[in-house]
Amino acid sequence: MSPRLEVIALEGMPEIAKGDPLGPMLLAAADGDLRAGDVLVVSHKAVSKAEGRMRSLKAIKPGERALALGSELGKDPRLVQLILDESTEVIRAAGGVLIVETREGWICANAGIDSSNVEGEDTVLLLPESADASARRLRSELRLPGGSAPAVIVADTFGRAWRVGQADVALGCAGLRPLDDWRGRADAQGRRLTATMVAIADEVAAAADLVRPKDAGSPAAVVRGLERLVTPEDGPGAAALRRDRSQDLFR
Amino acid sequence: MSPRLEVIALEGMPEIAKGDPLGPMLLAAADGDLRAGDVLVVSHKAVSKAEGRMRSLKAIKPGERALALGSELGKDPRLVQLILDESTEVIRAAGGVLIVETREGWICANAGIDSSNVEGEDTVLLLPESADASARRLRSELRLPGGSAPAVIVADTFGRAWRVGQADVALGCAGLRPLDDWRGRADAQGRRLTATMVAIADEVAAAADLVRPKDAGSPAAVVRGLERLVTPEDGPGAAALRRDRSQDLFR
Repeated sequence: MSPRLEVIALEGMPEIAKGDPLGPMLLAAADGDLRAGDVLVVSHKAVSKAEGRMRSLKAIKPGERALALGSELGKDPRLVQLILDESTEVIRAAGGVLIVETREGWICANAGIDSSNVEGEDTVLLLPESADASARRLRSELRLPGGSAPAVIVADTFGRAWRVGQADVALGCAGLRPLDDWRGRADAQGRRLTATMVAIADEVAAAADLVRPKDAGSPAAVVRGLERLVTPEDGPGAAALRRDRSQDLFR
Repeated sequence: MSPRLEVIALEGMPEIAKGDPLGPMLLAAADGDLRAGDVLVVSHKAVSKAEGRMRSLKAIKPGERALALGSELGKDPRLVQLILDESTEVIRAAGGVLIVETREGWICANAGIDSSNVEGEDTVLLLPESADASARRLRSELRLPGGSAPAVIVADTFGRAWRVGQADVALGCAGLRPLDDWRGRADAQGRRLTATMVAIADEVAAAADLVRPKDAGSPAAVVRGLERLVTPEDGPGAAALRRDRSQDLFR
């Protein structure tokens, strides 16, 4: 049989609130159709909500830098203050967007702070403090009969430097090899591959996004058929996907 | 039934040579299991080979700039000459890599020139001259009984500015909406989405890569379940994914 992948949206999840038991809720939505070799891709929004990472802009007092940047970029200065609070470095500020390095080390727009799919006006949603830790914690809540667990990815939607549109990437993962390293291995003609490290976790996040249209409210999808990359141990996580500053040509 | 995607590798394709009828060969490999609402994702390597885009480095005489860059980067100066020939601008030259804008307008490493999975020493493979044109041509060769045709993506493996590893993206497409534009539409809570354009074609290319391990030699995969994004007309193609220079913060 040909190599084959299935990507299945998890439907019927209720709205998630702070403190909700996300793991058991996902297990219930999967309704028994979740296997140890699966990868469960969960939107960071669901994770952030359960972790209480909502913030009310009403409680934010923007400082001088936030007021200046807000005026320059046409952005709510309270949101800018939150972005700065969640970042270690501003990489670009232009075109209405702040590209920053987040505290966890991701380079993305607006520190990943999100105002869509959040209840309540003036309420925004931060990224998890450590998405890898979130993924590991969530995986520990997903033990299946027999004691094994599917892999978990915590995904977010990122823009790209030179391509229009956004694609989902992995911010956190547990139990999935995030990179498939072919360096030194041979291709189909027996030639040595020199520079191929497939960003598996990002490709899985992208695949999962395709079954979760933005109006569906479905926070998770199951990707089935990657058993070769799912591991009993949690592994290095999505941290392995962060390019080291010394290798960064575009900062 | 839940939204669901299937990704199926096409196996049993013979090695592809210049002038080969790629469309009929893919139809034969699909063995009847190809539908009008499917997306057929084909590696650019297969397309480039059929289009005769192989080049022998033995025939290349590097000029001064290529010799200087080759020595600086530790790269074969003949390969550097080819990269320069295929590019309109060098964006970065560092860490053994040339990041360029290709003639077609993609920003990528080494002008997408590939030396793995190519037969013959010193033989390398260029990108198609116009991957959108290649996708349209290929689609026209894929008419199914009834006259409709699946969508086609021509994919390649690109690195990313701030993330380790490579992921497949769309260089060409025909018959698929490359971007799913949610701007102005409402999310699950009825809030207006402000900046969401999903790079569907790139996410589909990434999903397809997951069933084509680098040693499998499988040049194509079928992605099934995106009928809502497949169109009778060929549409704007992957050109819609190229960020305009005026919007580029990282050149």
